[in-house]
Amino acid sequence: MSQRVIDDHAEVAHHIHRVEPPPKQNLLNELKNGLKETFFSDEPLRHFKDKSAPTKLFLVLQGVFPILDWGRSYTLAKFKGDLIAGLTIVSLCVPQDIAYAKLANLDFQYGLYSSFVPPLVYAFMGSSRHIAIGPVAVVSLLLGSLLQNEIDPLNKDGSPNFAYTRLAFTATFFAGVTQFALGFFRLGFLIDFLSHAAIVGFMGGAAVTIALQQLKGLLGIKIFTKKTDIISVMQSVWGTVHHGWNWQTILIGLSFMVFILIAKYIGKKYQRLFWVSAIAPLISVIVATFCVGITHADKQGVQIVTHIHKGINPLSVHQIYWTGEFLLKGFKIGVVAGMIALTEGVAIGRTFASKMDYNLDGNKEMVAMGSMNIVGSMTSCYVTTGSFSRSAVNFLAGCNTTVSNIVMSCVVLVTLVLITPLFKYTPNAVLASIIITAVVGLIDIKAAILLWKSDKLDFLACIGAFFGVIFKSVEIGLLIAVAISFAKILLQVTRPRTAKLGKLPGTNVYRNVVQYPDATLVSGILIVRVDSAIYFSNSNYIKERILRWLSYEEEEVKSLSLPRIQYLVIEMSPVTDIDTSGIHSFQELYKTLRHRNVHLVLANPAPVVTEKLYSSEFAMLIGEDKIFSSVADAVLTLSTSPKAQEP
Amino acid sequence: MSQRVIDDHAEVAHHIHRVEPPPKQNLLNELKNGLKETFFSDEPLRHFKDKSAPTKLFLVLQGVFPILDWGRSYTLAKFKGDLIAGLTIVSLCVPQDIAYAKLANLDFQYGLYSSFVPPLVYAFMGSSRHIAIGPVAVVSLLLGSLLQNEIDPLNKDGSPNFAYTRLAFTATFFAGVTQFALGFFRLGFLIDFLSHAAIVGFMGGAAVTIALQQLKGLLGIKIFTKKTDIISVMQSVWGTVHHGWNWQTILIGLSFMVFILIAKYIGKKYQRLFWVSAIAPLISVIVATFCVGITHADKQGVQIVTHIHKGINPLSVHQIYWTGEFLLKGFKIGVVAGMIALTEGVAIGRTFASKMDYNLDGNKEMVAMGSMNIVGSMTSCYVTTGSFSRSAVNFLAGCNTTVSNIVMSCVVLVTLVLITPLFKYTPNAVLASIIITAVVGLIDIKAAILLWKSDKLDFLACIGAFFGVIFKSVEIGLLIAVAISFAKILLQVTRPRTAKLGKLPGTNVYRNVVQYPDATLVSGILIVRVDSAIYFSNSNYIKERILRWLSYEEEEVKSLSLPRIQYLVIEMSPVTDIDTSGIHSFQELYKTLRHRNVHLVLANPAPVVTEKLYSSEFAMLIGEDKIFSSVADAVLTLSTSPKAQEP
Repeated sequence: MSQRVIDDHAEVAHHIHRVEPPPKQNLLNELKNGLKETFFSDEPLRHFKDKSAPTKLFLVLQGVFPILDWGRSYTLAKFKGDLIAGLTIVSLCVPQDIAYAKLANLDFQYGLYSSFVPPLVYAFMGSSRHIAIGPVAVVSLLLGSLLQNEIDPLNKDGSPNFAYTRLAFTATFFAGVTQFALGFFRLGFLIDFLSHAAIVGFMGGAAVTIALQQLKGLLGIKIFTKKTDIISVMQSVWGTVHHGWNWQTILIGLSFMVFILIAKYIGKKYQRLFWVSAIAPLISVIVATFCVGITHADKQGVQIVTHIHKGINPLSVHQIYWTGEFLLKGFKIGVVAGMIALTEGVAIGRTFASKMDYNLDGNKEMVAMGSMNIVGSMTSCYVTTGSFSRSAVNFLAGCNTTVSNIVMSCVVLVTLVLITPLFKYTPNAVLASIIITAVVGLIDIKAAILLWKSDKLDFLACIGAFFGVIFKSVEIGLLIAVAISFAKILLQVTRPRTAKLGKLPGTNVYRNVVQYPDATLVSGILIVRVDSAIYFSNSNYIKERILRWLSYEEEEVKSLSLPRIQYLVIEMSPVTDIDTSGIHSFQELYKTLRHRNVHLVLANPAPVVTEKLYSSEFAMLIGEDKIFSSVADAVLTLSTSPKAQEP
Repeated sequence: MSQRVIDDHAEVAHHIHRVEPPPKQNLLNELKNGLKETFFSDEPLRHFKDKSAPTKLFLVLQGVFPILDWGRSYTLAKFKGDLIAGLTIVSLCVPQDIAYAKLANLDFQYGLYSSFVPPLVYAFMGSSRHIAIGPVAVVSLLLGSLLQNEIDPLNKDGSPNFAYTRLAFTATFFAGVTQFALGFFRLGFLIDFLSHAAIVGFMGGAAVTIALQQLKGLLGIKIFTKKTDIISVMQSVWGTVHHGWNWQTILIGLSFMVFILIAKYIGKKYQRLFWVSAIAPLISVIVATFCVGITHADKQGVQIVTHIHKGINPLSVHQIYWTGEFLLKGFKIGVVAGMIALTEGVAIGRTFASKMDYNLDGNKEMVAMGSMNIVGSMTSCYVTTGSFSRSAVNFLAGCNTTVSNIVMSCVVLVTLVLITPLFKYTPNAVLASIIITAVVGLIDIKAAILLWKSDKLDFLACIGAFFGVIFKSVEIGLLIAVAISFAKILLQVTRPRTAKLGKLPGTNVYRNVVQYPDATLVSGILIVRVDSAIYFSNSNYIKERILRWLSYEEEEVKSLSLPRIQYLVIEMSPVTDIDTSGIHSFQELYKTLRHRNVHLVLANPAPVVTEKLYSSEFAMLIGEDKIFSSVADAVLTLSTSPKAQEP
């Protein structure tokens, strides 16, 4: 199959470059550079160079509060855009806030509280221009089910359990602390460990779970399971079909769901009319409330909101558990909820930043989101983050800066102070329709298809997380998502690829013979490329894999009666680093090859690798003349050199 | 600093190769290949092809019991070597066994038991020819301190606690199960996750800890701390200096220590005389026992062995905890001890296999070691593995096969049945000297120096594990070793290297401009190489890093008034794989570049990467003509093409 020819190396003009060990770095420098690239790869202090002390102070302040930067060039024209955007998102956010609070098993008003304080804090500290801050469905659900595992949200008499609310604030506080710490200590890359595929599956599963939960409100079922898996929910639904459903509720729920879906369709089809979809939920709430109010349908069994506490956020610092067993529980829940909220928020920020080509500092975003949740936890808010649906509307409505969040916040304030009593007759069914229509957007079938097409293992991760959430629980789904993500990393570092290289005819280029079938092997020389850094986690595998390439090759050469393999050239270009275990494996490889009478030759080791080859004296062991700057150099030298002497 | 020239591309003959998407694989094939490379990379079933059923059965048996393979060609000449080797190692193993049992807080006889059954099992199932099986110092210490955390080894009256011994067998059983399972399910690569550097540090720390513990026996101290950290031990030692030390004990201990050290020195200096160092411990025991026996020094406060149970291993199946809380504790301890024993055993096996150039199947070794520990746990043995000192002696004494283990096992049997009562007067001090002289070899200062020279971060890992063990405890040291190893893997996958490439003068080769200062940049084209697979864990970083390269380059180009950058070429050779997060990042990169009026060009993507670029339609997005088989091709085409049109 594979051809093996002695090539005419004279055909290509060629200069041979020697590989010199790079100048030595001292430990301090090496550590400094390593730390810098790991934690300060964006060089946050670049702008501080050669500045006076007051300027530096101002730069620091400006770093913490970006509003000081863009605020100086803020104009009335920009404010016009922000005002319209803010008013548009508030019409979307008020009904969502009320509905999402119930997902977290909290009273309605906490949703509105959470759309008042955190957006204000973010407006001063955040660097994304398009994000809209507030409670979101998935985090509300996650927080609700984690909290519910610890404390029952309701007392036995059906009144809200005060301890549950306190634990919610505690978790929110620690979610904020987690987010702040990740950003401050520049550990933001940790959230990258949740793979895109796992997130798509997790979000989709959470959306299905949330939608299923809404069947309770939509069908007017009174006794409903507390579990979130699809089987328990379906049992609850079917079990009550004969005497638990309420037709008036179903009528209200379905008609407003159809109305909102049509509005959404219009908003999507004609981008000019995006506001139709944005105000549909608010119109639904107003109309439904009005209808129920005048028909007294609540007397017919239509469940209504009944009561929303009036007034602005009360302080809640004293409600956070600062001691006791709930401190630890709140901490654990907070870390998980904070990480997920951050993942969602940062992803949304990045999407718009790349769409509009501005730079988003991930670590700064985390500090901003952490701060808003810390402040929020002290002012009766629960975990908030960037909302995808509201951010998209914010963007389409033409917002220019975070001022749109301030506008939204102010209108929510007015709502809290004046309008909340009017929500008394709002039927739960219309809130359920609002939630269902909001979360269907999270089921990203297009992304799943793309996953299927481009990476089957990623697709499995996605499906695993999805089924974990809908058939078991949000926590299990999340666990599966994280586990699959980590398993993939472990596989990546233990089983790197290797390839046998051949020469592309008429060039000096050596390529994988599987990918380029016209590449020809070189007589007496086996060229193998290792496609990864060589670390303790894979050094043994790589050694054994290389020896296996050699054994196969020797068998083939023998069966074709070709000259025996004298040189094993390892193309090191992709080997970005090597550690002591790697060097150790190479030493063993060298010994084995010597037994087999084969010379070990290295081509194009990177600077760090070269340095380690020299400092460990491996370069001297195999002979410095066995290290070349390219495969072409190596082949040229080896095949023109006199018959190889025995090693 | 960096030169920027327009190169004369005509100077090198050049054919341009197109990059075609590789033929599509179906999911099943893809999964099969992935699984094969991960778990069956050594193609264990290769020899089974085209064989009849009985032959296959025999091959399976031969796979499980390699003795059926080499046994057929076993000769008397080989046996002679094995006999001598077996007799030599037994003289080393008997005193060590007795001493090591005390490290695990077990009665003396359990050490001898453990050198009888497990070596026999290994002889039939193991594939290493030079390894000598038995209890080893580090695993004994680790097991002892883990068990001690759960149950006190002694009753209040000073008699051995039966529950402790039972837990030891339970842990041994699960150590064996762990080892067997790792091998059977081909998960052997998991032990590669403990990095070489961490092991060097951990072993060194354990050796120091063990040696310090021996001060009790060596100085004849009666009341000694139970903690293993250096500070507690030193306090115990100094606290008893005035009235707790026994000069006769010290005399015995020090003189035999000097004797064994001299013997070791001779054995090392003249390799012919290796047997001097091998039999020195046994001679010490005999002489010391004889002296104490006739002088009745035990009456003067010299602590002696007093009693070793006579007879062969009693069965212990019924002593293993099959239920209750100790089942779980035994399991946990077993997993840890089993992994460490395996790491040590496999490393020793590999060392000799590479020295003598034979193949060692890691997974088979694990199955063999697992089996010997499972059988051992049922016959009153505790965790055993390959011992470095005894394996080295075995090798030097000229062993040929595992028959030397059988010889050793037989002599241990004779010892158990006939000689144990003679050990009555053996002073503990001489056992302490034997342990100290055995473990100093584990402190590998040369390896630590090599680590310092070749990789500073590896050195830190080594030192961290070392200090963790000696200043805190074996478990903490182990935890540090594992944590550092994992942190390194995480760093590796989150912060891959990138490099700016230039053309080596007179060639078509593009190399890192930092490593090759004479490489010249190409006008209007920025070439960046990404040195890693692009996965969710690093895709964001890579995108941002590439944009940073571009920003720096644009600044420099502007300051030198050179033509602006029109093309960004990404050299993809080292990018061995890309997942959907990676594709996603590339899409964002493409969008951002379009805003900046720069074309994105890819060079030499690997087959899997090419396939994903096509299946995700990213190739069509950037244009298939923007993907080249090499940087040289890309540069040649881009710089000869007419002025780039606006993207």
